[in-house]
Amino acid sequence: MVFIDACFRKKTPYTPVWLMRQAGRYLPQYMKVREKAGDFLSLCKNPELAAEVTLQPVEILGVDAAILFSDILVIPLEMGMELRFEKGEGPVFPKPVRTMEDIDALYEFPEERLTYVYETIKLVKKRLPKDKALIGFAGSPWTIATYMVEGGGSKSYAAIKKKVYSEPEFMHALLIKVAEAIKAYLIKQIESGADAVQIFDSWASALEKDKFFEFSWDYMVEIAEFIKERYPHVPVILFPKGIAGYLDGIYGKFDVFGVDWGTPMELAKEKLGDRYVLQGNLEPARLYNRDETRVGVEKIIEVMGAKEGHIFNLGHGMMPDLPVENAKYLVELVHDLTRR
Amino acid sequence: MVFIDACFRKKTPYTPVWLMRQAGRYLPQYMKVREKAGDFLSLCKNPELAAEVTLQPVEILGVDAAILFSDILVIPLEMGMELRFEKGEGPVFPKPVRTMEDIDALYEFPEERLTYVYETIKLVKKRLPKDKALIGFAGSPWTIATYMVEGGGSKSYAAIKKKVYSEPEFMHALLIKVAEAIKAYLIKQIESGADAVQIFDSWASALEKDKFFEFSWDYMVEIAEFIKERYPHVPVILFPKGIAGYLDGIYGKFDVFGVDWGTPMELAKEKLGDRYVLQGNLEPARLYNRDETRVGVEKIIEVMGAKEGHIFNLGHGMMPDLPVENAKYLVELVHDLTRR
Repeated sequence: MVFIDACFRKKTPYTPVWLMRQAGRYLPQYMKVREKAGDFLSLCKNPELAAEVTLQPVEILGVDAAILFSDILVIPLEMGMELRFEKGEGPVFPKPVRTMEDIDALYEFPEERLTYVYETIKLVKKRLPKDKALIGFAGSPWTIATYMVEGGGSKSYAAIKKKVYSEPEFMHALLIKVAEAIKAYLIKQIESGADAVQIFDSWASALEKDKFFEFSWDYMVEIAEFIKERYPHVPVILFPKGIAGYLDGIYGKFDVFGVDWGTPMELAKEKLGDRYVLQGNLEPARLYNRDETRVGVEKIIEVMGAKEGHIFNLGHGMMPDLPVENAKYLVELVHDLTRR
Repeated sequence: MVFIDACFRKKTPYTPVWLMRQAGRYLPQYMKVREKAGDFLSLCKNPELAAEVTLQPVEILGVDAAILFSDILVIPLEMGMELRFEKGEGPVFPKPVRTMEDIDALYEFPEERLTYVYETIKLVKKRLPKDKALIGFAGSPWTIATYMVEGGGSKSYAAIKKKVYSEPEFMHALLIKVAEAIKAYLIKQIESGADAVQIFDSWASALEKDKFFEFSWDYMVEIAEFIKERYPHVPVILFPKGIAGYLDGIYGKFDVFGVDWGTPMELAKEKLGDRYVLQGNLEPARLYNRDETRVGVEKIIEVMGAKEGHIFNLGHGMMPDLPVENAKYLVELVHDLTRR
């Protein structure tokens, strides 16, 4: 598989490409399946329909990898937390985790309840062309914990920051519990057929440098190393969003570093390109316009040199109103410009 | 004034300190005045009460500078846009700017209508001790324009990004109009008595590197240079939030670069410390805890060396639930640790 080879810096006929949130609302075909499923969580829990939307971007865009359709919040959901997706508001946990007792009350083995995810993976693998990879994923302990403590999305992260600075022992107790669940969950995804796994730290940028390493990165690396010890042939991708200022501290055994669009590719290459394959990092909003898409793609490929060590991706997820034809154009352009 | 001397890297007896959003909800004394005023905008428009809250942190915390109490959105307000501050939602412009006609309809000289701000400045200057500075301010054209186009706060910035990538001529027309107003507004603040001015680019991080320089930084520098030509003795402080990855591109004639907490001070010092005085950058959430406050302050002072070239500040605004006593402790600690 081109994608898997690229993760290990092996020679590939071209630079592979996939797009974060490639299975999503910008695709009319996705919207149809979503309607059939009912709400968002019902879609995540329905292996047949989740497999269908997972496969759509491979067929429609020609990307080199599918990524499991699911949500990072299925972990706290299956730890027993009530979870609602409210219109315009995003995910809401009406009863956030705020005390040690709340942590103790969380079910320890959510991975046992996530069978619908493993079923989805199995269905996708049956139908996916042999040369395309399937990426499994999880949220990072920090990002998941932030939702659990804040009770949903947040602008100021006031609740969890108060914990970070005043009750670090509470934070670590929660992070350890979530990290253990993620380890088991990703292992089960791999055993069900995932060819690679990515850990999304969407809220990395909520933490200053020292605290980022203590409360987020250390846990991500621990999970990555746990997986690499057991499945060295499965690439592990880490994606911490918004930490361009912390690249000097990046360490650990994993394969691919996901570069967000706020981190210039030159900078990522200079600091990390020797040690990790880099994935990224087109600003998704460039897809609003075809010329801007082309200029952005060309610039990234110029920096990365159309050779090994790079997987093309967006620097963040697809936005719901981006035109599909520009996403298709992007995939073709990357393949054309990097063919060797 | 220690603060003004420090802006020009002159010798000072200690490192001066002030805190972004130091006049605000974390102060019970502020809440009292706020209640008297009614809503937030009424407080901004009432020079007597606005002056009172501007002065409070100087008296309560002992900071070296007061900053005008106002809001960056008074510019679009006085350009004729309807503006509401909704509970929990933040500022809302029910009729956002979306077309060239919308731009044309904006009143060109909002600075003429902002007399309540100049009155506030005059009142503050009368009452402020002679050794304390008064900082005037404005939002950056980009940050103000983002509110105007999005119609309020935004997570994805989808509306304005669509403009950036598909209608750059619309964006520049709007930015030019806003930038011209800001120039005149800041000049009038200086002529009313402001000793220094700061431009807040709170949403700098919404833009990838190239676009940041084209749609935000270039305009900020233009305003800074306009002011420096006319009032060379008035320090200009620029504060772009969340662009740790773009420091290589920073240029322009201004005096002080505001460092947010996501940009490690070592990095800012290495990249910019020779050319600009640096202001910052304690993570405000450290103030939740006294020990964490001390550790954070000591680390920053260690990096900046308790000498010229540094103004101590937070790396973002005070949060509403931070304890006042820790803010006081911070100010004393900075003065004590840097006395020379």
